[in-house]
Amino acid sequence: MVKVAVIGSTGYTGAELVRILLGHPRVEISALTSESYSGLPYDRVYPALQGRLERSCEPMEVEDVAKKSEVVFTALPHTKAMACVPRLLELGKVVVDLSADFRLREKELYEAWYAPHTAPELLSQAVYGLPELHREEIRSARIVANPGCYPTSAILGVAPLIRQGWVAPHSIIVNSASGVTGAGRSLDLGSLYCEVNEGMKAYKVGEHRHTPEMEQEMSLLARAEVRVTFTPHLVPLSRGILTTVYADLTKGTSDEELLEVYRRFYEGEPFVRILPPGVLPNVRNVRGTNFCDIGLKVDSRTGRVVTLAAIDNLVKGASGQAVQNMNIALGFPETLGLEATALFI
Amino acid sequence: MVKVAVIGSTGYTGAELVRILLGHPRVEISALTSESYSGLPYDRVYPALQGRLERSCEPMEVEDVAKKSEVVFTALPHTKAMACVPRLLELGKVVVDLSADFRLREKELYEAWYAPHTAPELLSQAVYGLPELHREEIRSARIVANPGCYPTSAILGVAPLIRQGWVAPHSIIVNSASGVTGAGRSLDLGSLYCEVNEGMKAYKVGEHRHTPEMEQEMSLLARAEVRVTFTPHLVPLSRGILTTVYADLTKGTSDEELLEVYRRFYEGEPFVRILPPGVLPNVRNVRGTNFCDIGLKVDSRTGRVVTLAAIDNLVKGASGQAVQNMNIALGFPETLGLEATALFI
Amino acid sequence: MVKVAVIGSTGYTGAELVRILLGHPRVEISALTSESYSGLPYDRVYPALQGRLERSCEPMEVEDVAKKSEVVFTALPHTKAMACVPRLLELGKVVVDLSADFRLREKELYEAWYAPHTAPELLSQAVYGLPELHREEIRSARIVANPGCYPTSAILGVAPLIRQGWVAPHSIIVNSASGVTGAGRSLDLGSLYCEVNEGMKAYKVGEHRHTPEMEQEMSLLARAEVRVTFTPHLVPLSRGILTTVYADLTKGTSDEELLEVYRRFYEGEPFVRILPPGVLPNVRNVRGTNFCDIGLKVDSRTGRVVTLAAIDNLVKGASGQAVQNMNIALGFPETLGLEATALFI
Amino acid sequence: MVKVAVIGSTGYTGAELVRILLGHPRVEISALTSESYSGLPYDRVYPALQGRLERSCEPMEVEDVAKKSEVVFTALPHTKAMACVPRLLELGKVVVDLSADFRLREKELYEAWYAPHTAPELLSQAVYGLPELHREEIRSARIVANPGCYPTSAILGVAPLIRQGWVAPHSIIVNSASGVTGAGRSLDLGSLYCEVNEGMKAYKVGEHRHTPEMEQEMSLLARAEVRVTFTPHLVPLSRGILTTVYADLTKGTSDEELLEVYRRFYEGEPFVRILPPGVLPNVRNVRGTNFCDIGLKVDSRTGRVVTLAAIDNLVKGASGQAVQNMNIALGFPETLGLEATALFI
Repeated sequence: MVKVAVIGSTGYTGAELVRILLGHPRVEISALTSESYSGLPYDRVYPALQGRLERSCEPMEVEDVAKKSEVVFTALPHTKAMACVPRLLELGKVVVDLSADFRLREKELYEAWYAPHTAPELLSQAVYGLPELHREEIRSARIVANPGCYPTSAILGVAPLIRQGWVAPHSIIVNSASGVTGAGRSLDLGSLYCEVNEGMKAYKVGEHRHTPEMEQEMSLLARAEVRVTFTPHLVPLSRGILTTVYADLTKGTSDEELLEVYRRFYEGEPFVRILPPGVLPNVRNVRGTNFCDIGLKVDSRTGRVVTLAAIDNLVKGASGQAVQNMNIALGFPETLGLEATALFI
Repeated sequence: MVKVAVIGSTGYTGAELVRILLGHPRVEISALTSESYSGLPYDRVYPALQGRLERSCEPMEVEDVAKKSEVVFTALPHTKAMACVPRLLELGKVVVDLSADFRLREKELYEAWYAPHTAPELLSQAVYGLPELHREEIRSARIVANPGCYPTSAILGVAPLIRQGWVAPHSIIVNSASGVTGAGRSLDLGSLYCEVNEGMKAYKVGEHRHTPEMEQEMSLLARAEVRVTFTPHLVPLSRGILTTVYADLTKGTSDEELLEVYRRFYEGEPFVRILPPGVLPNVRNVRGTNFCDIGLKVDSRTGRVVTLAAIDNLVKGASGQAVQNMNIALGFPETLGLEATALFI
Repeated sequence: MVKVAVIGSTGYTGAELVRILLGHPRVEISALTSESYSGLPYDRVYPALQGRLERSCEPMEVEDVAKKSEVVFTALPHTKAMACVPRLLELGKVVVDLSADFRLREKELYEAWYAPHTAPELLSQAVYGLPELHREEIRSARIVANPGCYPTSAILGVAPLIRQGWVAPHSIIVNSASGVTGAGRSLDLGSLYCEVNEGMKAYKVGEHRHTPEMEQEMSLLARAEVRVTFTPHLVPLSRGILTTVYADLTKGTSDEELLEVYRRFYEGEPFVRILPPGVLPNVRNVRGTNFCDIGLKVDSRTGRVVTLAAIDNLVKGASGQAVQNMNIALGFPETLGLEATALFI
Repeated sequence: MVKVAVIGSTGYTGAELVRILLGHPRVEISALTSESYSGLPYDRVYPALQGRLERSCEPMEVEDVAKKSEVVFTALPHTKAMACVPRLLELGKVVVDLSADFRLREKELYEAWYAPHTAPELLSQAVYGLPELHREEIRSARIVANPGCYPTSAILGVAPLIRQGWVAPHSIIVNSASGVTGAGRSLDLGSLYCEVNEGMKAYKVGEHRHTPEMEQEMSLLARAEVRVTFTPHLVPLSRGILTTVYADLTKGTSDEELLEVYRRFYEGEPFVRILPPGVLPNVRNVRGTNFCDIGLKVDSRTGRVVTLAAIDNLVKGASGQAVQNMNIALGFPETLGLEATALFI
């Protein structure tokens, strides 16, 4: 059994990591750190885990965590992750970082969208943890930068078309809607039940920090600079992201032809499901799973394609993908611990 | 008191008409027809109305309804409306039709998207009932074609920019999400609570019947043919549409400059609210009201503008706008019966 | 126009007061105080009110508020209300207090369930503001203690049976479920969307502070001491309380006989609706209204009666009832400003 | 691998059986029958299963199903189950019936609450499949009558107190609230999203068919006839039942003493979790699992105890318990296929 720690274990992505790791046959949890709940049994923070996990939250002490663990998941806000990751790497740990700190290859880009970077020397080592695009590099990575939730859906949703020149790179518009777990467990007025329920809004239009991440990966696929217009929305459900990508087609085509492009591009991928013609993704169908479901529709009237991608933002959009990355880095079968069927009803 | 009838009164738009009309100081309900509930007291169909309305549902008999009423709202599915509207007009009634039957000016367009038209001679008389664009014609109309819910939000959301040449007409993409009342009260599997709850999906991508309606009105505004890509989504809430429109700007500009364009365009409009810079619409804020709230954001990085428009699909998107149209046609103050503050919590 | 102030105007009950008062034809809002948002335009706190209300939040200064107003609603947490109410009364204002501070007639009882009482001399002047039971005293009251949300539903739901000896006083069990607005707008982890959604729980079983309030009023009705078992539950909706009361019948009877008891007891009451036999209340049907809908069922097999009462916790359970009390105290028609039809869909 | 069939596989309990069986390491699905979807691939009925299950729905032909299968789950409406179960037993199959047809031991009782019984000779063979009470009989059963959802929660919630005389049998009141999956997947107006959302109501008060089932099992525990008042409620969530039981205590006691009674009674039970003092169950914490979480509170003021039990109505309340029963009947470890951690966020 490989010993794994979760730093920042009581937020929603931390808790989801715990949920998934408890069902993973080849790991055992060695430490769960929490600033807010240090000392408290984890199953008092999340009573759903009574009888499943007997372990208390502990303060975040890097040396101590490192001593107990081979793999460390850092589920911290940005800037806090880069404060502890360098030491974890020095101590030889495999790190899967769920923050944004190591996702962008260029220090300047990070600093333009986030904050000064205190460990820029690691940016070149970090691998962007989207296995469908970077599996080989992840195998040998010491630090995997786990992708953001929105970028995971957007990039997977349009990658085959960009890569193969079916769409004009400058024309890409990403429209996403997310459930409320995406906002985390912090005490924001905007996350109160009565502020969200029966409501719907866009936020951070044109300025959400997941934008450069999409552009970095789409530019790699296009082998040209891609800029996207990205609009995230908040909708009243707990889990799920549905991303609708609009792009101008470079030539006439059909749903079936493009779906075949997707099927080939993602052939053998265990977590990408290309839906049959006429079937479109629904976030319900991936709830609790690591799947990304993809459908599309050619709008011949306007020469555009509309692609739809659905993920569970806490699983493929965060903790499930982190476990997938760990599996790859450790040489485990990639689907280990991630085989659950969706709780689709 | 003007006597008004609702044909098709027990669906959701019919019931919303009843709710609004009960609070209107200058009308009284003279007939409520219903195929499904004929003979049943209306407050047994909707017990919320106990003590508010003592009237039974009656079968739809045009002559009889006409005899009792001066104004008739037809809240029927398409094709059923055009079967009874001609006779109502012959009998001198003012008709506000909530179906799609009289929204498109060209018979061929209607038939391409819907079905054969049996009363095409009325298409030229019918006025598209979006008061913000066609108020003068509505004043003297005998038949008002009440707009669809999605088009109301999309057209209002982008009209000033199209009219004044700020956006490239061919670049318009309309992304909408609607609550479930938009699907009506019919017994569809897809409308069951457990099929909708915690789910989110797109549907009828590129082929929704509200598309030609948007294009007709946007083309009028552009004085050129406009084609839009339109993607509706279904989200788990009862009321509300949020429409996000993407368009390429024809020149550099700022949020403030464009908001000023909107403020001028909609000056004096009682039901359009242009939000301050940095504030974006939320469907909660218009719930139960006839408002259309509009916000926008210039995405200078990509040269696009993103406009957001929120309405209550049952009010400004259907029954409230129908009452607004009736007010105009009868020469009443336009806001009569529509002054309620949103049930915003 | 009577000038009215709301002290503590930005919580949910304060905001609901504002919503209702804006539609009241004989009052105008003269001051809105807020600790958290002092200085901010009220329509920035609640953008739903844009164009409806141009007024900024102000700090709570009793003398100043009193100078501007004839009626003052205090929508403050308990203990904070009793700190300012005495001065408001001295200055001759009519006060409707939405806190618990003046609901219990006995100082000792208040102190056992809440905290030391700093204005006990006012307890005998305060009238418990349930108009269906205390209308005459409210007419001449200077201080109305607006009832709690759960007690309003429980007392109205069972009052006729207690008063007329149909049920054994010691047998009363009150089981309630409330929407989340009942918890207010404070930043509690338990009020976050993702903690409430798809969840359901009981809380404060046997120890909720609304218990003594129910017992006080039920004892008055029974002319004997009544003790109730009270269990509140939290369910995932924004507005609404459904209270199910269980009690042992003192003699055999039928649904129809008991419903007739209710009809007579509440005859002429504008806001209590006794449902027909076989129809049971649903919180949807009272949403946004001041109604209390009541239904019941005799369980002959066990000799019990089950009564059901539904209210909107923010309206009849708080702000609507407060306006009803103001109407009575000022000699206005009791339903003024409270005539809206439910937003039942 | 044991071959198992699901008769009536496309309703919600059928689909949940499929979901659970797909994760069970020692069974394989041999037939899925469906009246509505016969011939259609199962993953078109439930697209969440794409890539998980390649099998089409087939018509229900008993001989054929029996030929392919060792165990048959019948997930049919009552009366339909008893039409096919006798033949399945004749053919030597182990049957777990999820309908009500074999739950009541007495034909007369069944017929009083349901309909004429066409296979009364099997009632004495059938074992009521609540493993915590009848595990030994289930081991050798050929036909297990899987309990109803409400009774599972009510009986487990109060069994220790009844068995050991802590409560007066005649005083038991069962108040339950259920999510909407409990109503099944049929096209009822009352199950539409917009009829359920933001609503809450009681239904079938004092006459729900799960009542005799509770009474049968509670009477066995009490060794005396027990009659209960039972009130089910419908609340807006998909999964989960919370049952609140009220009963008069026969002597003074404390939370801790009674919790210890529960801990001993359920010692070693894999799916019953007794919560610590002060912690009360929430349906979120059992979502997707076979757990029944139990908490309680002594109300010393009134001499009553209030017990709370939470289950997932589709799992411990139906399909999970059915698999638990199969595991017992086949001699498998009882938790096989049922180890998932709750999807608690």
